[in-house]
Amino acid sequence: MKKIGIICKIGIPEPAEILKGLLPWLRQKGYETYVDMETTSILNMEGFPRSQIPSLSDVIVVLGGDGTILSVCRLVGDKGVPILGVNIGGLGFITEVQTERLYEVMENVLSGECPVEERLMLTAHVLRHGEPIAEYVVLNDVVVNKGALARIIDLETYINKTYVTTFRADGLIISTPTGSTAYSLSAGGPILHPTLDNIVLTPICSHTLTNRPIVLPDDVLIEVVLRSQTEPVYLTLDGQVGFSLRQDDVIEVVKAPFKTKLLIPCERDYFQILRTKLKWGER
Amino acid sequence: MKKIGIICKIGIPEPAEILKGLLPWLRQKGYETYVDMETTSILNMEGFPRSQIPSLSDVIVVLGGDGTILSVCRLVGDKGVPILGVNIGGLGFITEVQTERLYEVMENVLSGECPVEERLMLTAHVLRHGEPIAEYVVLNDVVVNKGALARIIDLETYINKTYVTTFRADGLIISTPTGSTAYSLSAGGPILHPTLDNIVLTPICSHTLTNRPIVLPDDVLIEVVLRSQTEPVYLTLDGQVGFSLRQDDVIEVVKAPFKTKLLIPCERDYFQILRTKLKWGER
Amino acid sequence: MKKIGIICKIGIPEPAEILKGLLPWLRQKGYETYVDMETTSILNMEGFPRSQIPSLSDVIVVLGGDGTILSVCRLVGDKGVPILGVNIGGLGFITEVQTERLYEVMENVLSGECPVEERLMLTAHVLRHGEPIAEYVVLNDVVVNKGALARIIDLETYINKTYVTTFRADGLIISTPTGSTAYSLSAGGPILHPTLDNIVLTPICSHTLTNRPIVLPDDVLIEVVLRSQTEPVYLTLDGQVGFSLRQDDVIEVVKAPFKTKLLIPCERDYFQILRTKLKWGER
Amino acid sequence: MKKIGIICKIGIPEPAEILKGLLPWLRQKGYETYVDMETTSILNMEGFPRSQIPSLSDVIVVLGGDGTILSVCRLVGDKGVPILGVNIGGLGFITEVQTERLYEVMENVLSGECPVEERLMLTAHVLRHGEPIAEYVVLNDVVVNKGALARIIDLETYINKTYVTTFRADGLIISTPTGSTAYSLSAGGPILHPTLDNIVLTPICSHTLTNRPIVLPDDVLIEVVLRSQTEPVYLTLDGQVGFSLRQDDVIEVVKAPFKTKLLIPCERDYFQILRTKLKWGER
Repeated sequence: MKKIGIICKIGIPEPAEILKGLLPWLRQKGYETYVDMETTSILNMEGFPRSQIPSLSDVIVVLGGDGTILSVCRLVGDKGVPILGVNIGGLGFITEVQTERLYEVMENVLSGECPVEERLMLTAHVLRHGEPIAEYVVLNDVVVNKGALARIIDLETYINKTYVTTFRADGLIISTPTGSTAYSLSAGGPILHPTLDNIVLTPICSHTLTNRPIVLPDDVLIEVVLRSQTEPVYLTLDGQVGFSLRQDDVIEVVKAPFKTKLLIPCERDYFQILRTKLKWGER
Repeated sequence: MKKIGIICKIGIPEPAEILKGLLPWLRQKGYETYVDMETTSILNMEGFPRSQIPSLSDVIVVLGGDGTILSVCRLVGDKGVPILGVNIGGLGFITEVQTERLYEVMENVLSGECPVEERLMLTAHVLRHGEPIAEYVVLNDVVVNKGALARIIDLETYINKTYVTTFRADGLIISTPTGSTAYSLSAGGPILHPTLDNIVLTPICSHTLTNRPIVLPDDVLIEVVLRSQTEPVYLTLDGQVGFSLRQDDVIEVVKAPFKTKLLIPCERDYFQILRTKLKWGER
Repeated sequence: MKKIGIICKIGIPEPAEILKGLLPWLRQKGYETYVDMETTSILNMEGFPRSQIPSLSDVIVVLGGDGTILSVCRLVGDKGVPILGVNIGGLGFITEVQTERLYEVMENVLSGECPVEERLMLTAHVLRHGEPIAEYVVLNDVVVNKGALARIIDLETYINKTYVTTFRADGLIISTPTGSTAYSLSAGGPILHPTLDNIVLTPICSHTLTNRPIVLPDDVLIEVVLRSQTEPVYLTLDGQVGFSLRQDDVIEVVKAPFKTKLLIPCERDYFQILRTKLKWGER
Repeated sequence: MKKIGIICKIGIPEPAEILKGLLPWLRQKGYETYVDMETTSILNMEGFPRSQIPSLSDVIVVLGGDGTILSVCRLVGDKGVPILGVNIGGLGFITEVQTERLYEVMENVLSGECPVEERLMLTAHVLRHGEPIAEYVVLNDVVVNKGALARIIDLETYINKTYVTTFRADGLIISTPTGSTAYSLSAGGPILHPTLDNIVLTPICSHTLTNRPIVLPDDVLIEVVLRSQTEPVYLTLDGQVGFSLRQDDVIEVVKAPFKTKLLIPCERDYFQILRTKLKWGER
């Protein structure tokens, strides 16, 4: 492991500040660094396009928040490069390393002591008139969501070609275990331990009060057919990319053929993160 | 009570069919009828603009669903004309009369035996840079809702000028008792008996898991300030009218100075409607 | 207002410590004090039975927690004596005064500046074979709850003699607004502003997933009939007194003919208490 | 497969009626039958103690409801005998065969066409002062539940010796996927597909509103320590067996070393059962 890719959140000053110390520290130890162009332009250094960094790197360090690391996980896709998430300004569910401990954890990463946690990803295809028109890979969730002005939508749902139900709701979240503490939790979904091989379906503001979140195995084919004429209805992927759906569009979701490899601080405690982020104190 | 206004749902054939029997029946009894133009054009009769019908009528019969009656209630506004809702094709929460019983209930209405139930309405103002730019009256709910592609929004909320909380959520529903069985219920809100003088605040997919629905007295001033830059964010009124909000817009909600007067079938049983509509059977 | 009753939580040392300062302070100002015997025995003073203190006092100061003040409110009943709740060791939903501010708030109480907030109470009767066998008054809630080993119970429920539904559940909470932030909240009920005149029915672990909390006006007669043979099933009142129910027992609940008068610190902010107690922070 | 065990629900007449046809039908085809003594005594036949039937049988037919089959699954334990559940008078989540289809499904069972579905079971140990004092095996759930008169309890919970949280609640449900549609669902838990290898922790009426259900892998050691002095607190197993817990008792739960083998009707549709039992219709 000689080549260290570094991708940073844009629009905040902290990553550049951190790099002023981190880059010399890495180079002195003999590592090559590949930093994204948006960040190096601030530092007056040469940088690399984000899209090339996964191919150039043995490991990628992300300086940002959960949004930044989600985009990097999609960028890495099937390349299998392990990712270390360093949270700027707090503690994230995915970017678990706090900046105070950056050098300590980097030592473990470079010496190979840092364990890798494999996280399930999902592949989503949109089919229109039976033809695939879009494909996405996500680490958190695939969300079908009506626009604010649209009426309630009907989402006819199949698992392995068997009819499940027609969700009458504001939308539907198809979430990985990693995504279970994101939007799915706000919509009433359960917490799934991040290493699980499960997919959870969580309806958003279901009109049918008995439609509860359903946890499934990861080897299923999920098909959601948009049955309503109401518009607009959107597909969002990890909360970031959007796609406008039409009546009778089919969203097919299966697990991705590869997993995200997250580097985990040695003594990390997942439940401690849950307690802190969800404020599990006395009432 | 001599003048009967009639307003129908558009785009379905049933109201015109019903009117073929109802209009002669009413005229034979000596009542004047004022039917909306959209419906009379199908019947080759002279009709009246919807907006004029409240001023022309002693009572208004609505043939449609909950959406139709909501629009009529807003149309009637402060004119105090009692409204009878006849549900086409089922049972509604507000349009409680089923078509099979139309003539029976009409007899009671005309003889003055039908009780009137007064329902709380809300007035909403939108203020931009401190200036009022829009005003609405609703029977069900005032909803602030992010667009499908927007991120979570911050809604700084005050009751009688006292800070309550900043909801971090997909949105916020400010509902009357009548509206408590509509969108608010899907978002996790309680059922309020429709004659209550209460307002309920129900967050939509709250990021803060402890933010529960709050029931308030009806004599409060509710102010919601949109604190997020994310766009689009919409105001919807009774699920039907939309308004695009900007950062720092203030939505002020108070009870309306008038109430909707609903004519209620004599032996109507509200809890029976709840049981039927919400499928309260054995599990 | 010359006579100050004082009732303290038993089994903790703080109240006696506070009284060592408070009693001389009050007497020096010319007030008579009536302290409960359990507390005065520690101080080697003469005391009074708790049950007599309401009749002896113009105002009662409670040093304890929400449990202590609930019992004092029931003790005061229809005597109309205003109560000041001082929370030992924290902040309570009902005992809103923190010990640091005791003297400051007492000054306001004694000068008559402290506003009184009237809180709805409930009266519950148990009828067996049509005969009343028990009567209770509560400030928080009347709860029917199956024992841990009993099976799910059927609670046939009527409002003003009209059938509502048969809750199939672990139990049912009939709560005042004051009680809405206690057990009802844990069971999924809404928060009711404490000054409201409403009663809320919240089922506990309902088998019927559509059975949501219902908010009612305060002028209703609620009747709950225990239809299951399973045993044991208990009635609990403000979480403290218990009564074993039998099949076909009827629990009748109406608002009490008197209200609890709580003395409220002048600049008290109810929503601030909600935020603190419910941990309404950023997620 | 020659030996057919039959175990029936006690106290209802239907099983004996069914056996009058089923037993001759089986014997004519050359099968040996082993029927429980409680049922044969009604039929004036010789029967067998329930506890012996698993050792005598190649397959066990259960005539009853979900409660009956749960007890048979615990009786079979590690003996690996497949079980067919026939629901008397309806449709159960576990007893999936309706009596109308009994002979059709029995043909499939006897010809070996009926697929076997393996269901995760849990083993629970209670430790007092570090010594095991009780052991149970369950198919649905292990529940710690306070008695109706006890106060809220503190359940200190560990996964694989790592502290998770201290649930302050009425209790805690540790459920299998099979049990996810039983008590856990009433307490707000998610639906888990029954073939999953997961365990779900669902708090009952949690005082801490952010304590959500957590889905875990099945290879964990769950330890729950009862930290409260309040009494009584009970352990219930599949809703049927009870055990009184004391302060500092530890409940250890792991997956059982064997699974229940359920015989599933060939064309069975799990989601159809969900839709029917949970009333997933249009709202």
